[in-house]
Amino acid sequence: MNRDALTRLLDAVASGETTVETALDSLRRLPFADVAAARVDHHRELRTGFPEVVYAEGKSLDDTVAVTTEVFTRQGRVLVTRADAETGAALERAIDGLVYDGVSRTARAGAAPSGPAGSVAVVSAGTSDEPVAAEAAETLAFAGVEFARYRDVGVAGLHRILSEIDNVGRHQVVMVVAGMDGALPSVVGGLIGRPVIAVPTSVGYGASFGGLAALLAALNACAPGVVVVNVDNGFGAAVAAQRILAVGAGVSSSPN
Amino acid sequence: MNRDALTRLLDAVASGETTVETALDSLRRLPFADVAAARVDHHRELRTGFPEVVYAEGKSLDDTVAVTTEVFTRQGRVLVTRADAETGAALERAIDGLVYDGVSRTARAGAAPSGPAGSVAVVSAGTSDEPVAAEAAETLAFAGVEFARYRDVGVAGLHRILSEIDNVGRHQVVMVVAGMDGALPSVVGGLIGRPVIAVPTSVGYGASFGGLAALLAALNACAPGVVVVNVDNGFGAAVAAQRILAVGAGVSSSPN
Amino acid sequence: MNRDALTRLLDAVASGETTVETALDSLRRLPFADVAAARVDHHRELRTGFPEVVYAEGKSLDDTVAVTTEVFTRQGRVLVTRADAETGAALERAIDGLVYDGVSRTARAGAAPSGPAGSVAVVSAGTSDEPVAAEAAETLAFAGVEFARYRDVGVAGLHRILSEIDNVGRHQVVMVVAGMDGALPSVVGGLIGRPVIAVPTSVGYGASFGGLAALLAALNACAPGVVVVNVDNGFGAAVAAQRILAVGAGVSSSPN
Amino acid sequence: MNRDALTRLLDAVASGETTVETALDSLRRLPFADVAAARVDHHRELRTGFPEVVYAEGKSLDDTVAVTTEVFTRQGRVLVTRADAETGAALERAIDGLVYDGVSRTARAGAAPSGPAGSVAVVSAGTSDEPVAAEAAETLAFAGVEFARYRDVGVAGLHRILSEIDNVGRHQVVMVVAGMDGALPSVVGGLIGRPVIAVPTSVGYGASFGGLAALLAALNACAPGVVVVNVDNGFGAAVAAQRILAVGAGVSSSPN
Amino acid sequence: MNRDALTRLLDAVASGETTVETALDSLRRLPFADVAAARVDHHRELRTGFPEVVYAEGKSLDDTVAVTTEVFTRQGRVLVTRADAETGAALERAIDGLVYDGVSRTARAGAAPSGPAGSVAVVSAGTSDEPVAAEAAETLAFAGVEFARYRDVGVAGLHRILSEIDNVGRHQVVMVVAGMDGALPSVVGGLIGRPVIAVPTSVGYGASFGGLAALLAALNACAPGVVVVNVDNGFGAAVAAQRILAVGAGVSSSPN
Amino acid sequence: MNRDALTRLLDAVASGETTVETALDSLRRLPFADVAAARVDHHRELRTGFPEVVYAEGKSLDDTVAVTTEVFTRQGRVLVTRADAETGAALERAIDGLVYDGVSRTARAGAAPSGPAGSVAVVSAGTSDEPVAAEAAETLAFAGVEFARYRDVGVAGLHRILSEIDNVGRHQVVMVVAGMDGALPSVVGGLIGRPVIAVPTSVGYGASFGGLAALLAALNACAPGVVVVNVDNGFGAAVAAQRILAVGAGVSSSPN
Amino acid sequence: MNRDALTRLLDAVASGETTVETALDSLRRLPFADVAAARVDHHRELRTGFPEVVYAEGKSLDDTVAVTTEVFTRQGRVLVTRADAETGAALERAIDGLVYDGVSRTARAGAAPSGPAGSVAVVSAGTSDEPVAAEAAETLAFAGVEFARYRDVGVAGLHRILSEIDNVGRHQVVMVVAGMDGALPSVVGGLIGRPVIAVPTSVGYGASFGGLAALLAALNACAPGVVVVNVDNGFGAAVAAQRILAVGAGVSSSPN
Amino acid sequence: MNRDALTRLLDAVASGETTVETALDSLRRLPFADVAAARVDHHRELRTGFPEVVYAEGKSLDDTVAVTTEVFTRQGRVLVTRADAETGAALERAIDGLVYDGVSRTARAGAAPSGPAGSVAVVSAGTSDEPVAAEAAETLAFAGVEFARYRDVGVAGLHRILSEIDNVGRHQVVMVVAGMDGALPSVVGGLIGRPVIAVPTSVGYGASFGGLAALLAALNACAPGVVVVNVDNGFGAAVAAQRILAVGAGVSSSPN
Repeated sequence: MNRDALTRLLDAVASGETTVETALDSLRRLPFADVAAARVDHHRELRTGFPEVVYAEGKSLDDTVAVTTEVFTRQGRVLVTRADAETGAALERAIDGLVYDGVSRTARAGAAPSGPAGSVAVVSAGTSDEPVAAEAAETLAFAGVEFARYRDVGVAGLHRILSEIDNVGRHQVVMVVAGMDGALPSVVGGLIGRPVIAVPTSVGYGASFGGLAALLAALNACAPGVVVVNVDNGFGAAVAAQRILAVGAGVSSSPN
Repeated sequence: MNRDALTRLLDAVASGETTVETALDSLRRLPFADVAAARVDHHRELRTGFPEVVYAEGKSLDDTVAVTTEVFTRQGRVLVTRADAETGAALERAIDGLVYDGVSRTARAGAAPSGPAGSVAVVSAGTSDEPVAAEAAETLAFAGVEFARYRDVGVAGLHRILSEIDNVGRHQVVMVVAGMDGALPSVVGGLIGRPVIAVPTSVGYGASFGGLAALLAALNACAPGVVVVNVDNGFGAAVAAQRILAVGAGVSSSPN
Repeated sequence: MNRDALTRLLDAVASGETTVETALDSLRRLPFADVAAARVDHHRELRTGFPEVVYAEGKSLDDTVAVTTEVFTRQGRVLVTRADAETGAALERAIDGLVYDGVSRTARAGAAPSGPAGSVAVVSAGTSDEPVAAEAAETLAFAGVEFARYRDVGVAGLHRILSEIDNVGRHQVVMVVAGMDGALPSVVGGLIGRPVIAVPTSVGYGASFGGLAALLAALNACAPGVVVVNVDNGFGAAVAAQRILAVGAGVSSSPN
Repeated sequence: MNRDALTRLLDAVASGETTVETALDSLRRLPFADVAAARVDHHRELRTGFPEVVYAEGKSLDDTVAVTTEVFTRQGRVLVTRADAETGAALERAIDGLVYDGVSRTARAGAAPSGPAGSVAVVSAGTSDEPVAAEAAETLAFAGVEFARYRDVGVAGLHRILSEIDNVGRHQVVMVVAGMDGALPSVVGGLIGRPVIAVPTSVGYGASFGGLAALLAALNACAPGVVVVNVDNGFGAAVAAQRILAVGAGVSSSPN
Repeated sequence: MNRDALTRLLDAVASGETTVETALDSLRRLPFADVAAARVDHHRELRTGFPEVVYAEGKSLDDTVAVTTEVFTRQGRVLVTRADAETGAALERAIDGLVYDGVSRTARAGAAPSGPAGSVAVVSAGTSDEPVAAEAAETLAFAGVEFARYRDVGVAGLHRILSEIDNVGRHQVVMVVAGMDGALPSVVGGLIGRPVIAVPTSVGYGASFGGLAALLAALNACAPGVVVVNVDNGFGAAVAAQRILAVGAGVSSSPN
Repeated sequence: MNRDALTRLLDAVASGETTVETALDSLRRLPFADVAAARVDHHRELRTGFPEVVYAEGKSLDDTVAVTTEVFTRQGRVLVTRADAETGAALERAIDGLVYDGVSRTARAGAAPSGPAGSVAVVSAGTSDEPVAAEAAETLAFAGVEFARYRDVGVAGLHRILSEIDNVGRHQVVMVVAGMDGALPSVVGGLIGRPVIAVPTSVGYGASFGGLAALLAALNACAPGVVVVNVDNGFGAAVAAQRILAVGAGVSSSPN
Repeated sequence: MNRDALTRLLDAVASGETTVETALDSLRRLPFADVAAARVDHHRELRTGFPEVVYAEGKSLDDTVAVTTEVFTRQGRVLVTRADAETGAALERAIDGLVYDGVSRTARAGAAPSGPAGSVAVVSAGTSDEPVAAEAAETLAFAGVEFARYRDVGVAGLHRILSEIDNVGRHQVVMVVAGMDGALPSVVGGLIGRPVIAVPTSVGYGASFGGLAALLAALNACAPGVVVVNVDNGFGAAVAAQRILAVGAGVSSSPN
Repeated sequence: MNRDALTRLLDAVASGETTVETALDSLRRLPFADVAAARVDHHRELRTGFPEVVYAEGKSLDDTVAVTTEVFTRQGRVLVTRADAETGAALERAIDGLVYDGVSRTARAGAAPSGPAGSVAVVSAGTSDEPVAAEAAETLAFAGVEFARYRDVGVAGLHRILSEIDNVGRHQVVMVVAGMDGALPSVVGGLIGRPVIAVPTSVGYGASFGGLAALLAALNACAPGVVVVNVDNGFGAAVAAQRILAVGAGVSSSPN
């Protein structure tokens, strides 16, 4: 219910045109009524600080192209995640300037905004974790967040992460992408005092159970301060990283 | 081993002063040598920005008291988690000024430092989630982090969280403690743009499976930007919140 | 076996006309004897108020066509669920007037009866939940039940469901179709006093475990009055909704 | 904002005592703001048609007594669930007229309202399912809903449910409480056309896994129209039954 | 309803003596009508060949004693399972001649009937499996079935089972009680051609998950011909063994 | 090693002809020595009463044909299970008289022996359970066991099983094949006193978890005397049925 | 049955002295006949290189004392595992020289033999893992195997394990005891080339699921060469370590 | 950082040449600094005794060929695991002398080194376990470790393993590859005193849950001394076997 409608209702009560009983009934769920005006396109970005993104998996190719085009027209830029190669090619044909990336299975179009200050370390344990790390990276790029990649630094060769840990620690937020035993988030979380976002991946075989092993390991990290997102959810981790950077970027008074 | 030491070692090999076997042995685990000196007591706080904490569950009463006393003597302050009432009483007898809190099952002693700027909203869904939320609150207090509690605002009565959402959003970091269906983190994550740390709790019955239902719900939150810690892990959520605040508090150049 | 038959049997035993063994054998499974005559085709609708439906998954194309044709001939109308596009095309060729719907993967033929008074709100959280919601909708249409669709009102943008909640609440029964975190049933169940049927869907990735996350969330809904059907079971939810409407539709004295 | 306060505000507008502007101010940003005043006690009943209930498990004895007393004072009646014998005795001492029932572990005080027309069949498979069935029965009684109990009619002796099925089917809603193999809901759902609410129980041993076997059986019921609530959740099933009856009881225009 | 009754009913319809609605109502649940007379006490033994047994777990002491006394009075003999020592003592006081056995946690009273010819080998892997094997043995004794015990012949010392296998194979039915790795059923099933009933037990620690490991092993036995009952279900295994013996005991024409 | 051999060995030790070490080595694994001669082809049938069967899944087409041909040559008859259509065609080309059955995915060649007296009822709940029931039927036919099929008698229409239960009970062994809720084994087990072998199937959707729901239901059957085989294991159930019939067929002195 | 016996049997068949049926019967289970003599007490140690050990959990106090005394008398030494304090005290009273250790919950009596050359590193992650590590240590001591303890070197403070890794690597076998995230086995397995035996422990809370998280992490260790024993199974790990040392200790020709 | 470097740093602090802040920063992550030089290619073999291996699954064909070529060039030999036939063909074209093996899905190039003394028994239960056993065998061959294969000796025909057990026991390490019920590791572990490495396989159907049944059985092996690797992990088992042999091969002073 917008201000005008509310004014009209109260006027009607004041004039006796509407009984108190009727008005009461209208107002009972008032807190939640008539918010349709808020359903405008840029609402999500206003509310949560992140624009709408197209999740392609489970959508038909035609639907994906149509939705992506609509979002791009409206927002001036768009990110598509979980898009296979065929979808990527169709999107590139449909939208001028859109670029598809086969590793991360994402497509991006439009100039990135200037994101919050600071940067994110995207640390991945093995080459098989690359697609998930790449999805995170593309999402950060879309959001205008600076980041650096640290690849193939899993704990099977501990010197690899140790030789990079100082560089990793210079970033304000650290994302750790790891499948199999999921030991890397614990190790990194114990070495630095930054917020560590663990992204378990479904990489593994045997009793990895589609990433469950890595997920449980991350949740049980003996180093406190490690937080976890869903298995293979590079996108979600990137959004969380952007939110965290925004805390420190002097924009804290606006996004809520 | 620095460059000079490496040069010296190779010179010694070249001159025959050191055999190849001896040099090989020295070089094999080179990255990890000579760390013993670093094993000093205050190392953890230096490294991760959070002092040592005593986890009482599974320890004997005597051991808990001894370890707590030792940590208190060394650090000047101490936090004990998962302590039952009997342990709490023993700790109060042993350490002057220590206070035990029965709801959160924590004990604290010593003056808190001045934590990073900003504050944390500790939002809890129901009264049964109180112990976990209280553990988080006590940990934040121990770390000198400001916070405010928002209690009993679960989605069964949605107006409760809606009436507080503006206040919640004024904090830089939002922690959402919820058991049962674990729906609250999704709802909060969709309403504000702050980093949201979900803390699933083991509250519930039937097919809640000790918090698994709430945990899965939080991991699958349809609002991006929600990160998750282990079931009932109020302590870990608080450490993560402190790390996130430190990102934005102008201390970003030192803690890594 | 009625009183007369029982009397006759015992008389025969007393007079020696029937041996005790024979009588014993007759009496042992007495409650369940002579049911063959009841095995007529229209029995199910008489008994449970819902006609026979063809579940196509796991059946060969030929079997599906044959069974559907037989049911259509007998009942004058038929609903087929879980039919892929190829099956749909074959059914359209085989049965005049049958229409296949690719989203819900259902096919329908024959005029719908006039269902019970009242209507059902079919609420779905995201576009990916569409196939399940559509299966429910097609089933309701087949049963002659009125319904309205409320699409894409998941809790990630809470204003969406809030702006529709008054309309949703005007229906006598509310069905909530939601995957991922499954938070929507809890939210709706806390806002209105109608029977709420939660339909978890297998939409999601990572630790959604084929809909388990949404299923557990619905079962643990903190709002009482929420009932749950199997994952992706739009059909079953629609049958339940029809049964509930029949309770209130003045036909309560007959369908049991 | 409760009904009284809202009425007063509207009355004031109607009488000219308050200007429309002032009233508008109070009501503004209504979708999410300023609903704190609505946090009054009887709000839940207005919104969902069921008064507040006290869930005793996990609460201290003192807290349970205090909360129950407060709710009783406010609502004039109260239901407490999951209360052990000690709590029940304390409640009986604290509240005049309150009666504790050891089987269902519930306590009730105050006269029940006149519930919706129609009645509920509470069907239970075995004597071990009695506590859950009794919790449902007590909740129905509290809500003023008529019901009849059908005990010990599990499928191990199929004649038991068959001999009662006509009586069961005369009720508008059927609740089936069953543990172990959970076969009874399927059998009942196939025999009658009423809404069937399955309540799996944790009764069983070995691989019943705390009710999981019965829960999965109910969710996979081959008879459509069966809906399910959480394991052992007699309370939730009763609330759902009350909501369903209200659909058919001519009160459908008010509770939403 | 027999053919006569059906004829009479249709005649009445033809003559107008009975309305169509009334006849329809009568016919709708015809197969299941008039079974009340069958609800006599000795029905179960007639129907399934095994008398009623009292399962004590979850029943109050008073209820257990009352039910046991009633069953004993009616059947002349009774078996109680899952009875703790206190219940056993109460039963011994209440029923003359009843004997409680602490290992199997069963109580028995009354003379056993003469069971089917043949005998059962009750083979147990370790001493910790003894309670489950003993429950099976007591049940067999109650049913008048001969049996012999083979104890502590687990595969960790394979010579133990090998040295007994000829004796085991002389019994017509072989029951194998085993926890931990559950390997014994596979081994026995591969050595003899008798029906092998595997009884997984909850004995074990670590990742035995309350008998799940042994249960899965038994279900996946690579020797065909192995059938499985629930974890710790010695009683059920004994009933199955009795049924199997009855097949071969010349009573095959009557018990169905 | 028999008594004589043992005596000779010890004599040799006493006389110094054999050293203690040599004797010790001989005695250590004495129970298991010298078994190589027993590795003849017809051993399995002698030992367990069932000939060798070829399990095709996971074998290459060439390997399956080769092994089947070899077994057929040796045994004079052969059964192949889990063979897809392509394998079936290849087998028909390779072995004269072999017949492939597409529903059960089995192939058979050679005349069946005359099996034990008695017969098996193969009861299946729905048409989707047909492949598993057919595998059982083909296996029984291969073993020369008589059987009758009872199809589509699931509990959703209870009159179907009730109208057949007398016929079912005339067989000495009853096999119940059921997916989804797995309620049929419990119902049948409560109606007749025959050994009931439950075969859960992976038929179902949503939370059936590949047959887990039906498996747990069968294991928790409230009717004692129900035994269970692995999900979809029609073959194993048939072998168990054959073993049970052999108990009653007067061949009980030889097969062990 | 040795070659001579076989020859004699076949001669008897050829001469008609023995019928074919009798010979067939003898030959059918030939490989497993006549093993009774091998059932002597010291057989297990001869066969597997490890003496009999008493597992106290689930045994009554009296049984534990009796079995322990018998084993001690026979073997001259004994190890008891999973013994609570009360059992320990009773054992100390019963057996002279027996010592109970409360941390490992083990009791030992008798002089240890001289075990294989080499030693074992028993590495534990946290103080809560102490009981499991201590059980392993006591078992090694009982077997006469040398070992050294490395305590509290979990990855939360990575410098701890790094500062000890050279010492750890000097042992021939490395056992890593770790709960929670189970990351330590991966880290150690990547640093040294020794056999690494991971012992997951049930230490942890929330979603550690009784050690499942640590178990899965160890099984998925990205460092090859890590082998795993059951959760909390310090005893089993020690036996495995002893077997491995025996490989390298020059005793390889005898223990098999 | 060695002693000299530490002294120099502190001298600089004392003299004011270096500020306290700068020194603090240098010292904070001291243990892990300056490791970049160690990142040389042959490091892994030096450190863990096993060269780098290429895991092909999840890598693109081009990437697999490129990485394999690079590793081969560097190490002079290479092993590729989890390679499908197409990848195998491409590798054979790319690298001279490389041989692809379709059963184990591995490819090998280069002369094997001379491995540690002793040999490994690779025991497999059924023909379906062959791929996993073959992967282990190829890995052992690559490492220059001698081994012998024992095929198709599952417990369904116990005489098969018994007739080979003496030969199996002559090897210093025994690997047991088994799916389905996973009973073979327990049986072998109880018969010989060698280290037994169980390799569960995903062979099976129904409730084998992708190898979970075999995995749990192996972890719960009632014979102590059995260690376990991940499901289907033939490669990991081979590396563990090589490490164990190295313990006994006189190279124990160097590999750590």
